[in-house]
Amino acid sequence: MADERTERADDGREEEDYGLDPDLIAGIVAAAAEGDGARVTALMEPLHAADIADLLEQVSPAERADILRLWGHEIDGEVLSELAESIREEVIAALPRDVLAEAVRELDSDDVVDLIEDLEEPQQEQILKALDAGDRAAVQQSLTWPEYSAGRLMQREVVTAPEHWTVGETIDFLRRDQELPDQFYHVILVDPGHHPIGYVTLGKLLSSPRTAQLTAITEDSFRTISARQEEGDVAYAFNQYHLISAPVVDDDDRLVGVITIDDAMSVLDEEHEEDMLRLAGVNDESHVSDGPLTTARQRLPWLVINLFTASLSAIVISRFEHTIASLVALAALMPIVASTGGIAGTQSLAVAVRALAARDLNSSNARRVVRRELFAGLLNGLGLALILGSAGALIFGDIRIGVVLGIAMIANQIVAALGGVLVPLTLDKLGLDPALASGTFVTTMTDVMGFFAFLGLATVILL
Amino acid sequence: MADERTERADDGREEEDYGLDPDLIAGIVAAAAEGDGARVTALMEPLHAADIADLLEQVSPAERADILRLWGHEIDGEVLSELAESIREEVIAALPRDVLAEAVRELDSDDVVDLIEDLEEPQQEQILKALDAGDRAAVQQSLTWPEYSAGRLMQREVVTAPEHWTVGETIDFLRRDQELPDQFYHVILVDPGHHPIGYVTLGKLLSSPRTAQLTAITEDSFRTISARQEEGDVAYAFNQYHLISAPVVDDDDRLVGVITIDDAMSVLDEEHEEDMLRLAGVNDESHVSDGPLTTARQRLPWLVINLFTASLSAIVISRFEHTIASLVALAALMPIVASTGGIAGTQSLAVAVRALAARDLNSSNARRVVRRELFAGLLNGLGLALILGSAGALIFGDIRIGVVLGIAMIANQIVAALGGVLVPLTLDKLGLDPALASGTFVTTMTDVMGFFAFLGLATVILL
Repeated sequence: MADERTERADDGREEEDYGLDPDLIAGIVAAAAEGDGARVTALMEPLHAADIADLLEQVSPAERADILRLWGHEIDGEVLSELAESIREEVIAALPRDVLAEAVRELDSDDVVDLIEDLEEPQQEQILKALDAGDRAAVQQSLTWPEYSAGRLMQREVVTAPEHWTVGETIDFLRRDQELPDQFYHVILVDPGHHPIGYVTLGKLLSSPRTAQLTAITEDSFRTISARQEEGDVAYAFNQYHLISAPVVDDDDRLVGVITIDDAMSVLDEEHEEDMLRLAGVNDESHVSDGPLTTARQRLPWLVINLFTASLSAIVISRFEHTIASLVALAALMPIVASTGGIAGTQSLAVAVRALAARDLNSSNARRVVRRELFAGLLNGLGLALILGSAGALIFGDIRIGVVLGIAMIANQIVAALGGVLVPLTLDKLGLDPALASGTFVTTMTDVMGFFAFLGLATVILL
Repeated sequence: MADERTERADDGREEEDYGLDPDLIAGIVAAAAEGDGARVTALMEPLHAADIADLLEQVSPAERADILRLWGHEIDGEVLSELAESIREEVIAALPRDVLAEAVRELDSDDVVDLIEDLEEPQQEQILKALDAGDRAAVQQSLTWPEYSAGRLMQREVVTAPEHWTVGETIDFLRRDQELPDQFYHVILVDPGHHPIGYVTLGKLLSSPRTAQLTAITEDSFRTISARQEEGDVAYAFNQYHLISAPVVDDDDRLVGVITIDDAMSVLDEEHEEDMLRLAGVNDESHVSDGPLTTARQRLPWLVINLFTASLSAIVISRFEHTIASLVALAALMPIVASTGGIAGTQSLAVAVRALAARDLNSSNARRVVRRELFAGLLNGLGLALILGSAGALIFGDIRIGVVLGIAMIANQIVAALGGVLVPLTLDKLGLDPALASGTFVTTMTDVMGFFAFLGLATVILL
């Protein structure tokens, strides 16, 4: 396995070193089609739960039904929690009750919460009933925190020690405790009121003498997270401060759980996906496994909105019908100015949305960034005006056409650069996600401005 | 601090719960402008290195120079390694030699590598000279691995144990060893040839009896990473398999270092940034702190390319000047079809680029996804054609205008949906980054197709 990877390494993207091998997928699908359950199970056995989830997402609905029929009884909770939401409901509905119950009982409370929070009521009930009383209470407790909050993300299984303990006492306690979480990276020190006051890494615990006081070896990086904190902020904090795990506290600052970096990394990944899709005007729940009908429905709203905003351009142009009638060549030239403005607006927008997400753009530097965009737009406008203006003047043998193209280009590049940063800044100020649909707004601005500047100038200068 | 956060929690984006407080930035800038070094130092003292780096990035060059003059001697290596590249060179150049030497000596080898790999030769030399001989050798060794490889990302400080050790022997060894890394999460088991053969979490080590064999408590999640592996693939593996740390091996499968999840998370974040910016046609090294000249230069290439691709649209339109001259209203209507196609293409493109990055789209399902896009495009095309066609027919009192608009819309929506998925799939197949500039390609396709279908149909049906 390692050899194989070494040979392939650094080969660029065409050879995927991780993730599913398409040949393996084809093999499993073929075995499932033949009804060869033993072979399906044998091929899937070595796969990681995350890869099995990807497999189930990537095959067609009919193939998925075949695979689940033959292999479904082997499914474990981890596969369910790795599945994309849209597929998860389908898979849960296809599983026999006892298989489902068995699968969810293996999961940590945070994974059960993640699994059921978006399910319909009846499926939710079914899974809650499968849990034992203690786990069910823990899950229901987590569900009382707001959606997308740290309280939903955290696991409730925490390893704590009273602040007055020594290293030796702590190690003895860990050896005795039968109920330790699968993964933990810190022992959290709590005071008698169960407020977290510091933490000790396991590395420090292992390398310190048994007589050392825990309070003497705590980490500077200690930070608590409120259970009400938005999960995107939690992911930011983990990435910014290189946290590995962080205690979560309730409204009275009492320890209620812990968030680990692998969960924060998943959230970071999802937030990025959301930003990228929203910026492109796509519903952020869309998934590659969605059918054509779902896909069409997810994308239609912004297309219809764009139909109306594009009509603004049409109205602007129609005001200049007289100008176009006098010189039809203008109709061919006008999209150049508009389209180059669209690209410039998209560039400025992507930089601003990213900077806002990374907390690199805020009220302390917004003014300077806007000024920078203004100058950058002016500079590129001048450069593009020079190219397009000379080309236009030469091709049409009329320097005035070059002047009109040039000035319209400069005006539109400035509008594009400013719009690209001001629209997301405004949305952010209003408490909205700056990635939300800024794309359509900005290209409408550049289209309208592009057509108006070009045709307006043409009317004044050429007619 | 915790109280403050609890109150603010779940307040949406307008109140940033982490990151820098703009008031604090203003206070530091004001103190620096007054030359009040004591106050600058006092205000910056409680800040995390990552926040200090953000502060230095967000202020203007003049303000940065003031702050560095007053506070620069306090800088530590972590601040340097958190800084954006463009600012880092400037800061390093501004620091006195002894301050710089002191700062880099504190860093782990992987952070020094990250710090110097993009510096110019003289600055690189200066930093290497500041290191002691052992660290210098380690850094130079890391630099022999390819750029953006696991070998550059890994830290060389690893904690290993011979495979035959017991828990007790391992703990005793850890207590004796004075040179343990700051952060480690696993003890890696190696055979006599120094090949990693498994790992044990510190949690297991702490909770197992001293007499237990290490080989009896190893983790299933164990995976090695080749030092030549591309860092994006490493980040994918950490996210997909919930890894916390993974041993890195050389071409002979010998252990050479370890990568931890916080480094993988940074890479994931950077890769996302790259995808988002590239898709928008922006140089992925652009940063919010860049000046207007740098910004303009970074964006100009794609703008110029777009100038040429937009000329294709102009050429198409100019072929139909006769048609437009006969009915000037067509000039006003034609951007609606083109622009709605542009949005649809962007939607389809964003979904495909994201799915490729997440390894959710590959040869096993590409055919089905393309078919899905085709149908989704057709469906939305029909819906939009109905709206736009009826509006056009009513407004112009001519059903034939409605028909032309409708059919052109359907054709362009299909082209947009297909182009959005086929362009990135093709780039990926060619071993190129699918996010690279697909945006311009796809909108060119939809513009050209939009104008051609609309004006062509108008010529046939209306004239």
